[in-house]
Amino acid sequence: MAKFTVRFLPSDISTTVPEGTSFLEAAAAAGLPLRSPCGGQGHCGKCVVQVGCGADEARPEERRLFNDRELAEGRRLACQAKVIADADVIVPASSLVVEHRVSVEGAFREVLVEPNVCKIPLRLSPPSLEDPRTDLKRVLDALGRTVRPTRSLGPLRALPGALRCAGDEVTAVTVGDDLVAVEPGDTSDAAHGAAVDIGTTTVVAYLCHLPTGRLASVAADLNPQARYGADVISRLQTAVAEREGAARLSRAIVQLLDDLVGRAADEAGVSRESIYEIAVVGNTCMTHFFLAVAPTGLAEAPFVPAFRCAQRVRAADLGIAVHPEASVFVLPNIGGYVGADTVGMILASELDRGDGVAVAVDIGTNGEIVVAKDGEMCACSTAAGPAFEGARISRGMRAAAGAIDAVAVEDDVDCHVIGDVPARGLCGSGLVDAVAELVRVGVIAESGRMRRPDELLSHPEKVRHRLIENEDGVQFVLARAEETEDGKPLSLTARDVRETQLAKAAIYAGMDLLLADFGASPGDIDRLLLAGAFGNYIRRESAIGIGLIPALDLDRVESIGNAAGVGARLVLTSTSERRRAEAIARRVKHVALSERDGFYDRFADAMALRPMSGAD
Amino acid sequence: MAKFTVRFLPSDISTTVPEGTSFLEAAAAAGLPLRSPCGGQGHCGKCVVQVGCGADEARPEERRLFNDRELAEGRRLACQAKVIADADVIVPASSLVVEHRVSVEGAFREVLVEPNVCKIPLRLSPPSLEDPRTDLKRVLDALGRTVRPTRSLGPLRALPGALRCAGDEVTAVTVGDDLVAVEPGDTSDAAHGAAVDIGTTTVVAYLCHLPTGRLASVAADLNPQARYGADVISRLQTAVAEREGAARLSRAIVQLLDDLVGRAADEAGVSRESIYEIAVVGNTCMTHFFLAVAPTGLAEAPFVPAFRCAQRVRAADLGIAVHPEASVFVLPNIGGYVGADTVGMILASELDRGDGVAVAVDIGTNGEIVVAKDGEMCACSTAAGPAFEGARISRGMRAAAGAIDAVAVEDDVDCHVIGDVPARGLCGSGLVDAVAELVRVGVIAESGRMRRPDELLSHPEKVRHRLIENEDGVQFVLARAEETEDGKPLSLTARDVRETQLAKAAIYAGMDLLLADFGASPGDIDRLLLAGAFGNYIRRESAIGIGLIPALDLDRVESIGNAAGVGARLVLTSTSERRRAEAIARRVKHVALSERDGFYDRFADAMALRPMSGAD
Repeated sequence: MAKFTVRFLPSDISTTVPEGTSFLEAAAAAGLPLRSPCGGQGHCGKCVVQVGCGADEARPEERRLFNDRELAEGRRLACQAKVIADADVIVPASSLVVEHRVSVEGAFREVLVEPNVCKIPLRLSPPSLEDPRTDLKRVLDALGRTVRPTRSLGPLRALPGALRCAGDEVTAVTVGDDLVAVEPGDTSDAAHGAAVDIGTTTVVAYLCHLPTGRLASVAADLNPQARYGADVISRLQTAVAEREGAARLSRAIVQLLDDLVGRAADEAGVSRESIYEIAVVGNTCMTHFFLAVAPTGLAEAPFVPAFRCAQRVRAADLGIAVHPEASVFVLPNIGGYVGADTVGMILASELDRGDGVAVAVDIGTNGEIVVAKDGEMCACSTAAGPAFEGARISRGMRAAAGAIDAVAVEDDVDCHVIGDVPARGLCGSGLVDAVAELVRVGVIAESGRMRRPDELLSHPEKVRHRLIENEDGVQFVLARAEETEDGKPLSLTARDVRETQLAKAAIYAGMDLLLADFGASPGDIDRLLLAGAFGNYIRRESAIGIGLIPALDLDRVESIGNAAGVGARLVLTSTSERRRAEAIARRVKHVALSERDGFYDRFADAMALRPMSGAD
Repeated sequence: MAKFTVRFLPSDISTTVPEGTSFLEAAAAAGLPLRSPCGGQGHCGKCVVQVGCGADEARPEERRLFNDRELAEGRRLACQAKVIADADVIVPASSLVVEHRVSVEGAFREVLVEPNVCKIPLRLSPPSLEDPRTDLKRVLDALGRTVRPTRSLGPLRALPGALRCAGDEVTAVTVGDDLVAVEPGDTSDAAHGAAVDIGTTTVVAYLCHLPTGRLASVAADLNPQARYGADVISRLQTAVAEREGAARLSRAIVQLLDDLVGRAADEAGVSRESIYEIAVVGNTCMTHFFLAVAPTGLAEAPFVPAFRCAQRVRAADLGIAVHPEASVFVLPNIGGYVGADTVGMILASELDRGDGVAVAVDIGTNGEIVVAKDGEMCACSTAAGPAFEGARISRGMRAAAGAIDAVAVEDDVDCHVIGDVPARGLCGSGLVDAVAELVRVGVIAESGRMRRPDELLSHPEKVRHRLIENEDGVQFVLARAEETEDGKPLSLTARDVRETQLAKAAIYAGMDLLLADFGASPGDIDRLLLAGAFGNYIRRESAIGIGLIPALDLDRVESIGNAAGVGARLVLTSTSERRRAEAIARRVKHVALSERDGFYDRFADAMALRPMSGAD
C-alpha cells in the first residue's frame, strides 16, 4: 500500500502514513492528538483542520458543517478526511488536545506557547478569470481569521512581489490582528521576539524563538541614563529642568535597547529582520522615557503619569532596527511610581492568583512592594533610595569585580570580594551583611549608633581595632589599606549605617502598611518573594537580622531573580499572559505611602536594627 | 437679575441669558435648537449636553438617567439644568435638531457636515490627590467617547506639555476613532482637509475647511507620470519592465500631491499643519502607484489588483508634509480597471439611489461606464484609448491654448481656438465636433470613410478644397497654414477618424452591454451623466451625431464635471458619505467587457458614425 507524508503546521511536524489513514489518526501518530469528543464520528466538529491537496473528497457531514468558501479553502474534519497523497495540514490551536507549553525560567510554571506573532505558511492558488480575488483578499481568505494589513502598507506593498515570485508558497506574518508581512516561501521558523527590562541601573534584553518559546540569547548593559543621575528622581529633574533633557534621556535608552537587541540577535545568529515584536517592562518613569513621552507629571505632586495603559508602537517609529513592521508592546503601568516592571513581577510570581498572604519586593534603585491576599493586590513604591544599589554609601558600588558582597564577623572580619581582586567598594548584599554582622556582635547598637572602641572592651581585639574615630565620626574598617585597590582603608561609616536604616525602614514600613490594609501583619506572610539582582544575592539571614524583611521561617522567603524580565518574556510568549498582565495593571490598588496615615509611625518604628515580626 | 454667557461647543456660539434660564432655552436663543420631543419634561433624554461649571445641581430625573461617572463629567439634560454662572456647554451632534449641512458644488445636494476629523476644545481640571487620573485618561474622559491615541505616539507625547502650559484649555483632535493630537488653547477652527483626484492626465487638490465643509482653494497640475507614458497601460509596462519603475512612478505622483496640497494651503493662507486628512480618488492603477503598491497584477490577465478595499495610511509615511499625524484615506476600488474615481463619481451623482435607468460615463484617458437601474449598479472600463484626450490623434492635444475645441461646417469651416492664438492642435471636443460636422455634411461616410474630392462635387467649394490627398491618404484641412502656429495646415486624417470610431464604439458598446444586463437598451436611459473635463465641454449634439452617446432628448444628458473629485470632497466632509462610498464599492458589479459574449458584436455595430438608439 502507498505511503504518504503528512506535514502538520504551524508546528511543522511530519509523519508518514498509509494511504487511506484519517488525518485524525495521522495527527495522533505525529504526536499531535486532536480533540475528538465524538470519537471520530464527524458529529462534534472539534477536529477541524485545513488541508490543501492530499485529502479525499469532503463527506456529507463536512458539507453540512462548512460553507462553500470554507470547503474551497480546504476546511475538513480530521476524523473524516483521508490521506490520498502527500499533504500539508494546518492545525488550528483550537483543535489540539495537548497544547504546546514551555517553561519560562523563573516563572515557576509552564505556559502555553501562543505568541502574539504568528507566521503561517500558505499555499495560494494563482488568480484566474474564475477567481479574480485581489492579492490581499487571497491571503486574508487563506488565513481564515480577521486580520488587517498595517496602515504603514508594508505588507500590502510586499504582496504583489511575494505572490508572483515564490511558486505557490508564501508565509503570512501576523502580530495580533495586524498582517505585518507576506514573505516568499516558508519562513515560519524565523520568528523571534525580544523581551526587555529597562531597569534604572541595568537594561537586559532576552531574545526568544517564538514558535517554541525558548530563550535564544541574552544581552545586558548599564542604563546610559546614569550619567544624568543615579536614581529616577535626579533624571526626572534633568528631564524637566533642561531644554531637550527629556529627549536626550529618551534617545539614550532607545539607542541602548536597539544595541542590545542587535547584540542578542548576533549572539543567537539570527537576523534582526526576524524579530517581529519587543515586549518592554520598566518603571513608570523608564516607560515614559523609552516612548519619548515627557514624564513631566511625575516630577511633582500628585505624581501623575501621562499614561498607564499598555502601549503598542511601531519599532521603526522609535528608531529600533528590527523587522520594519515589528511592534513594541510596553506593559501597562500601575501608577506614578509603580510601573510595568511591577506588573511583570506580579505576572511572573502569580501574585494575582493563589491563596494566603504573599508579598513581593523588588529592591532595586526604587523599592516596589506588592502585597496580595487571596489574589487581591495592592502596591506601593518606597522612598528607599538607592542605598542597596551602592549609591549614597561612602564606598558603595554595584555588584561587580572588587565589590565586597559578603561579610562575616567572628574573631575578625572576613570579607568576600567579587572577582578575586583587591577590594574597591561595598555592594548591596555586602552592606546588609556588614550591618547585620556588626549589629549581631554589638558593634552597632539597635538604634543604629556605632559604638566607640571604649564601649567594646570585651570584643575580640581585631574587631575592636577596626573601629576608628576621626573628624567624620566613627567608622568601621572592613578592608585594610593593604587589601584595597586604592591602598586606603575601606570603611563602613556611621552615615552608611544611617542610610541603610532609612532604606530598610522605608521598605519594612511600606510592607507593614499594605499588609495592614488586608488586616494582616508581617508575621502572617506565607510567601515573601525577593526580586531583582539584590534579591538574588542578599543573605536572607542578614536581611532578617537588620529588619529589612520580617523574621519569617527561611523557607517562606524565596529569591525570584529578574521577575520583571520574566514577566516580559511571558507576555512575549503568550497572548493569554499578555491579557493577564493588562488585567493585573487594572486590578492592583496603587497606594501612595506618603499620603497615608500611619506610615511615618511605622517608618520610625522600623528604623531599629533588629529582627522584626508582626508581633513587635 | 444677573446675566451669564453660555458658550456652546463645538460650534462655538455664545449667548447671554438671565440666571435660572434652562440650557434648552439658552441653546434655542443661540440658534441651536435641541431635540426635546417630551417638551422639556426631562423624560425623553434627547437633549443631553455636557456642562463643566455654570449649571445648578443635577435633578432626580438626571440621576436616574446618568451614572456617577457621567454625572461627574457634567452630563446633563439641557431641559433640566439651569444656568447659574458663565458656562461652556458641549452639545453632541445627536442632541441637535437642525444639523449643519453644506452644499458641495457638483453634488447636486446638501450633505450633513460631519467630517472624520473633529477638533474638540476641552477645559480640564488639573490633577490632584483626589483626582490622580493620568493625562491621557483625563483627556479621554473629557472626550466622552471611545478614541485611542495613534500608535505613533504623537498625541501622547504632546499631552504632558499641552496640559501644563495652556491654562486649562486644550483642543483634542480626532480622526475617526484615533486621537491624533492635543493642542494648547482652542484651535478648533484650524481644521482642514484635502480631497485629491489623481487623474491619469491631471491631478486636482481641493482644500476644504472642515468645520464648515466649505471649499477653501483648489490647485491642479498635470500628472508627472505622463513622461512614462500617456495612458495607464504604458505606465504599467514601465512599472513592470523597469527596475525601480514602479517606485519612480509612485514618487512622481506623491511628490505632485504633496506640492499641490502645499499650493492649495498657501493660496488659502492656512498652515499645512492644519491639514489632518486627505481623501484620494483615482483609477485602480493610480491608487496603487500612489500607495507605492506595485500594480503587478494589473499588467496581465486576469488583471487582479493587489487590493480593492479602502486604505488608510499616515500621510507622513507616504512623505506628504501636512500635520504629522494626518491620515490619508484612499477610496476603495471596484476592480482592476474600475477604480476609486468611479466610486467617487457614483457617490457624487447618487447612482446608488433613485429610480429608473441612469448611466454615468467618465470619458477620460480611460472610459469608465456605470449603469444603474433602481439603485442596482454595474460598471466596466472600456479600451477606449485616449483619443478624446488628444492622444493617438495626428494633431491631438489637451484642451489648452491653441486647441481647436469647437468646429462648425456650413459654406466653409469655422473653428474656435482656445485662447485667441493661432491653432496648434485639436482637443477632444473639437475632434468630436469635427467628425460630427463632416459626417453631417457628408464629407465622412457613416462607415467612417473620408470621401474623395471628386465624390463631393455638389458641396461648397471652400469645403471641398479642404480635402487633400497625399501619400498618407485623404485628409481634411481644418486650419490653413496661415491660421496655425507652425505655418503648416492642421488636418483631420482618415486615421484620426478611425481612432475616433474605435473610441466611441468601445464606449457605446460597453454601455449597451451593461444596459442589456438590466434588460434595458440605450433608448431607455432616463439620465445620462457625462463626467470629466471632456464631459463638460463636449457638444451633446455632436456626441449624439457620431453615436458616442445614444440619441436621447438633450434634457436627459447632463455634464457633471469632475464628479470623482466631488466624491472625494463628500467623503472628506461626511463620515456618512464615506460609509456610503465603501458600500458602493462592495455593491457595484464589475464587468470585464472583453470576457463577455456579445461585446464584439456590439462593438462592430457601434463603429457606424450616425445617431444611435436602442432601437437600432
